Order: sequence, then structure tokens, then C-alpha cells
Amino acid sequence: MENEEGKGEEADRLSLRSLGASFFSETERTMEILVVKTAGFCFGVRRAIDTTFAIAEKRHQGVFTFGPIIHNPQVIEKLKEKNISPTDDVSYEDIRALIIRTHGVPYQLMEDARRRGYDIIDATCPFVKKAQHYAKLLREEGFQVIILGDKEHPEVRGLMSYAGEDAIVTDEKGDLPDLKNRVGVVVQTTQPVEALKKLVSRIIEQSKEIKVYNTICNSTALRLKETEEMAGKVDVMVVVGGRNSANTTQLAHLCASLPVRTYHIETADELDRRWFDGAERVGITAGASTPEWIIDDVRERIKDIGGREGDGT
Amino acid sequence: MENEEGKGEEADRLSLRSLGASFFSETERTMEILVVKTAGFCFGVRRAIDTTFAIAEKRHQGVFTFGPIIHNPQVIEKLKEKNISPTDDVSYEDIRALIIRTHGVPYQLMEDARRRGYDIIDATCPFVKKAQHYAKLLREEGFQVIILGDKEHPEVRGLMSYAGEDAIVTDEKGDLPDLKNRVGVVVQTTQPVEALKKLVSRIIEQSKEIKVYNTICNSTALRLKETEEMAGKVDVMVVVGGRNSANTTQLAHLCASLPVRTYHIETADELDRRWFDGAERVGITAGASTPEWIIDDVRERIKDIGGREGDGT
Repeated sequence: MENEEGKGEEADRLSLRSLGASFFSETERTMEILVVKTAGFCFGVRRAIDTTFAIAEKRHQGVFTFGPIIHNPQVIEKLKEKNISPTDDVSYEDIRALIIRTHGVPYQLMEDARRRGYDIIDATCPFVKKAQHYAKLLREEGFQVIILGDKEHPEVRGLMSYAGEDAIVTDEKGDLPDLKNRVGVVVQTTQPVEALKKLVSRIIEQSKEIKVYNTICNSTALRLKETEEMAGKVDVMVVVGGRNSANTTQLAHLCASLPVRTYHIETADELDRRWFDGAERVGITAGASTPEWIIDDVRERIKDIGGREGDGT
Repeated sequence: MENEEGKGEEADRLSLRSLGASFFSETERTMEILVVKTAGFCFGVRRAIDTTFAIAEKRHQGVFTFGPIIHNPQVIEKLKEKNISPTDDVSYEDIRALIIRTHGVPYQLMEDARRRGYDIIDATCPFVKKAQHYAKLLREEGFQVIILGDKEHPEVRGLMSYAGEDAIVTDEKGDLPDLKNRVGVVVQTTQPVEALKKLVSRIIEQSKEIKVYNTICNSTALRLKETEEMAGKVDVMVVVGGRNSANTTQLAHLCASLPVRTYHIETADELDRRWFDGAERVGITAGASTPEWIIDDVRERIKDIGGREGDGT
């Protein structure tokens, strides 16, 4: 009897849900929504975006970013409306002002741009600048430089220009060639610290003098850590951010490897109420390139589906 | 029937064995004796011992070594016969010449000895000298120095004197206190490389700039490797060397952790024929402080028991 009663209640609830979240009364059991504290823009990205939008207010033509300012299509779209577009050609004749994004650029490219006489707004993340500086320093001190990172990533391509001709780029899984006796290490700022530990262990087997600059940015590590913790407390994780953002994708992979239902979306429009069937708690996280307004949109839309704000992370 | 015949043969063999090895005929099955290639004196120890015996030939009084020249009681005994004794007091008035052993000494002690005007023969292992040099260099460059090693070992006490007041000594299991941002590592020459990897992984979690001088001596690593390989091929391992030799004890612990019968002896006199019952192959290894004549003695005595020379390692 109890069972049958239970089924009846469940059926009622399902029919309510199918009518939309606004039909849930205050006393009805609804999903709790939790947002990872460090979700979204990191210090360097916020600085670059604020700078770019400030320039958009003042100058209305000839402003370009070198490559997309961040890996987030929605932000790029907003900037296009304000006449700021990405370019990958520093010699493009329409350029009056060029904004260098957080990832930085190879130093040759910066020199080339400087020779052209237009304004350069260098929004390279200060932590990336530091990694570039250390790559150069290690090279000048005669170390063979090893960069831990993704060799296709713009930040790493920038680092390579400072690291010298015998520099090696490798990731966690990559093979190491025969190394010299004196080896220096710098790290793409968004790499996980475990990858650095593994790399250094492998270098110790070959080289006698090893200098490691741990240039990993704490904000990435912290975001990963908090995301992992939240994934352990919720039924569904929604990862918000550009599909072309390595940072966001890393969060999505992390969650997908854990026992939690994981969905990676770029905007709230992609949300599907069926994802939340039976869920009591839902967690939201977002990469360093995801703006707050997109995270807010996602939270609001989940509220519409039947969620209510939780007490933070 | 076959089984019974087998038993009869086995009984014959056992009775022969109880009569002593000389009763074995050439065609009788005997134990193969294998000696680890890198067993015994390493480069630094050979150099120190050769130097010391050469001095013994020329000078007949007032020659002392600072502490036992090596951790091998039999060698110390031989030197005493030649009037060379260990002392732990550089101010001892009978000293005319002082030999510094492979482990080296704290630099304050060396300076103290120098002020006293007697001859100093510095037989510090060149690899230990290098580690001392790097400890000093790291300190001068403003790094907090971490020494991986056994803080009671004379080599480490020497390194500490070069490493500065905020230096830390730790082994694989030791806790790490809060570290500074810039940390430099030197290693007791006889440490295993795995311990260095683990230590550096732990440092990476705390510090941002890490300089590692891998001062581990290859000869120790190679001797451990070859000993481990041999232990996999024989029924009995005999580890030869001073019980006060960390180096030899490390080999004995390694073998004891493997599926092979292991015996640690200082001299051939300790050999017991019962250890070799049923053994087809016996392996001999020895620490860096074990002289060749002791290893030869052991080999000969095992031959007497019923062994025959194998084809090297």
C-alpha cells in the first residue's frame, strides 16, 4: 500500500515537473544549485577582458586582438559588436591598436608588431610573463629548457620562443629524448601539478642538475580541486564554457572521470531538463574563460527547471 | 620404481655432502658461484685505501685517519698492524699526518686541522666533494638547502656544514617542515634514486623554484641493480662486508626483501655449509667498503664447500 502511495506521489511530481518549475511550491522538494567558488574568470583573464572592453568604450575602429581574446565564443561575439575583432596577422594594415591576449605571444612576433608603430596593449597574464621570463633565464644560464605543456597551445608557443633552440615541449605522456646534463623546467600555467611531478621524476633519471620553475597558476589548481570536491557532493555537474577552452575541457574531463552525471555546455540554451531527473543537487563549474553573466544565466535557467540556490560551495 | 631410484641417488648425494666438498667428483652436480661485477670497492674507496696503504709504507708513526677509513673492521685491523689508527680528535697531540676519509668532514673541522700545522691527506671521495661544493653553492645563491640522506652519517654531517643554518636533512620517510619558496637539493651519494624522486615530488607541492643536484653516485645504483638482478638468478645470496657499513647493509636488506635465501657476513669464517643445502647457484655481492681479498676468501671457501666458478654475473 505504501508503495502504491509512493508511486502516486512520484507520478504527481513528474506531471508537475512536466508543466515547468514555476509550478513547484516553496515546500516542494527542489534541486539545490551549488556554484564552485572559483568558477569563471581568473585574475589574468578578468584583467585582459576589462582592458579590452575599456578600450572598446574609447576607440571605435582599428582595434584588434591577436587571436581570440579568450576561448569563449560569446565574449568574442560581444566584442565584434563593439568593432573589436581577432586577427592573426600583425602586418594587417587596418590595425591601429593590437591587444595581446593572456596567453602571450612569441617574442619575435611582439618585436615585429612593435616595429609597425601602432599601439600595443599587452594583456599577457602576469603569470605567463613570469614563465616566459624564466624560460629565457634558464636558456641564458645554459640549461636545456623543457616546457611541460601542450605544444599546440598559444601560451606554449610563446614560451618556446624564449626557451631556445634545443628546448623540448612535452606533456605527461610524451616521450623524452636524450637530455643534457643541465636541464631547466618551466610549465604551462594551466598544467596539473601531478604532471610536473611525473616529468621531474623522469628527468632525474637522466640529468644531474635540474632547475624547476613551478609556474603552474594556483587558480587553475584550486578550481580543479574545488570542482572535484563539488562533484563528490552532487548528482549532476554542469561545466560551463567554450568547447575550444582547454581549461573548461579539463574540468569537463575531470568530472566525467568521477561518478557524477556531467554535461559540458557553452550557454544556458543547451540545458535540457531531462538531465536533472531525480537529482537532488546540481553543481556548476566553469573555466577561466567563462564570463560571469553566462554562469549566472545557467544558474537562473536551472532555477526555472526546478532548482533553488544552495549555500555556496 | 623410478621414484625409489631417485630417492636412493638423493640419499647418496647427501651422504657424500656430509663428508665434505672434496668428495665431489668433477662430474658431480656442484653449485655455481657468481660474483656481482661491481661488488666491492668503488672508485673513491679504492683511491682512499691505496693512498692510506701507500702512506703506511713511507711513514711509520703519527699517521691517523679521521674516524675509521672505511666501515670494514678487517681493513682497520690491517692498518693498525701498520701503525695507522683512527682518531676522532683533530687536536690529538700525537698526530703528524691526518687522513680524511671518503665521507669527508665538516669544513670547520678541516679548518681546525689545517691550523694545527700537521700534514693533511684529503681522501674525500671526489663525488662527495662535488656534493659539498653544490651544497655551498646553493646556500650562496640564497636557496634553502635540503639534504636527502641519513643525518647520522658522516658524509651528511659534512654536507650540513656547507649547506647553511636553515638547511634541512631528510630521508625518504622523514617529514618536511614548511619550506621556503626557493629550495635546493643535494643528495648523500649512496641514496637510492627513487628516494630523490619522492622527495622532489613533495617539494614541488610547496616551493616555486627548485634546484636539484643529483649527486647520487652511479656506482652504488649500479651495484644495487646488479645485485637485484643476480638475486633473481640464484638460490642463495651471500652479502659480504662490515655490519657497520650502511652500503653493505643496504645490499643485505635488498636481497632479504627478495625471494632468495640471504646471508650477511663480514668474513669467510662465518660461512655455514648448511646454508647451501640444495642450492644450485649462489651469488656473492659486497658493499663499497669490502676489500677484494675478503670477497676472494669467501669465493674460495664456498668452492671448498662444493661450489664451482660460474661465468661472471
